Amino acid sequence: MQIVCLDLEGVLIPEIWINFAELTGIDALRATTRDVPDYDELMRRRLAILDEHDLGLDDIQQVIGKLRPLEGAGDFVEWIRSRYQLVILSDTFYEFARPLMRQLGWPTLFCHRLEVDGRKRITDYHLRMKDHKRAAVEALRGLNFQTVAAGDSYNDTSMLGAAHTGVLFCPPRNVIDEFPQFQVTRNYAELQQAIEQAFRG
Amino acid sequence: MQIVCLDLEGVLIPEIWINFAELTGIDALRATTRDVPDYDELMRRRLAILDEHDLGLDDIQQVIGKLRPLEGAGDFVEWIRSRYQLVILSDTFYEFARPLMRQLGWPTLFCHRLEVDGRKRITDYHLRMKDHKRAAVEALRGLNFQTVAAGDSYNDTSMLGAAHTGVLFCPPRNVIDEFPQFQVTRNYAELQQAIEQAFRG
Repeated sequence: MQIVCLDLEGVLIPEIWINFAELTGIDALRATTRDVPDYDELMRRRLAILDEHDLGLDDIQQVIGKLRPLEGAGDFVEWIRSRYQLVILSDTFYEFARPLMRQLGWPTLFCHRLEVDGRKRITDYHLRMKDHKRAAVEALRGLNFQTVAAGDSYNDTSMLGAAHTGVLFCPPRNVIDEFPQFQVTRNYAELQQAIEQAFRG
Repeated sequence: MQIVCLDLEGVLIPEIWINFAELTGIDALRATTRDVPDYDELMRRRLAILDEHDLGLDDIQQVIGKLRPLEGAGDFVEWIRSRYQLVILSDTFYEFARPLMRQLGWPTLFCHRLEVDGRKRITDYHLRMKDHKRAAVEALRGLNFQTVAAGDSYNDTSMLGAAHTGVLFCPPRNVIDEFPQFQVTRNYAELQQAIEQAFRG
């Protein structure tokens, strides 16, 4: 009994913060953990910027609603779901992901959430748990699933390591170099092949 | 962060074995655990009957493909998935459920599997684990999800008890009497209301 765990941004949809910065023209929102290594500081900064620009959740969802899943992502999700089970493990927030999840036909998503006040201002964020991607894969193994996990970046490597088979998808050079144990795939056809092969065992 | 765990047969789709017996006219397949209390004996008997009638997996899936989800089930699944996360916990087999899961837009399903040989004959069945519904709810709680579980019958009560909130859906009288601690709902509108209320809680 087989389940695929997929990262979301960079695998099925574009990077949300970067594209949000692009669409709104707010350059300060382009910062990532490469620029501000402390995630909490980065998030507080982002929420302060949204507040400064008077952007509530509705405005933000409207902008995110203009984004589209990556080309071929819908078919890829359908391919997985008609053969195996699928859970998406992401460090984004439900409130941001929703407009894109709708376009993907609502696959199951484990991520984090925002706190929103009565005026739809984002007042805080809540991480469901630390290293939740790894924990989810371990929980699924505990339920006797065969697991394949795929992701593109550093924060996916612990779930890739926890899965029976971990696969990198379009990763940056430094991740490839640091984690030579994971197969590298560069498009959905290659990732499909890696998944099939892993489950055929 | 909120997840709904739903039983499948009797909640979203009709009972598969009973309807399969109906459509094929094979009365012996109507037996349930009420008639043959030992589940393994019941399953071996069912597989032997399928074999006697020369029914392979393709034939079976073709028959099951004629079944439709319960009226309103598609909208109910959509209602849940656009607001919360959804995992379906069932004691059926992936191979049987597939034609119905397609009609429901492939929600994530945790169940069991059949063993099929090269000629598509069903040769055996594999339970993923004992009491897997309860174990799944506990695993989701371990991942810091708020959980609501809903089901219609005896084999759902351990997951209802493990969830933050357990709700019965169209249960038989004996289950209502034996488990008075669970709220009883009789249609999707009532179940929606129970779910909303539990998560607002």
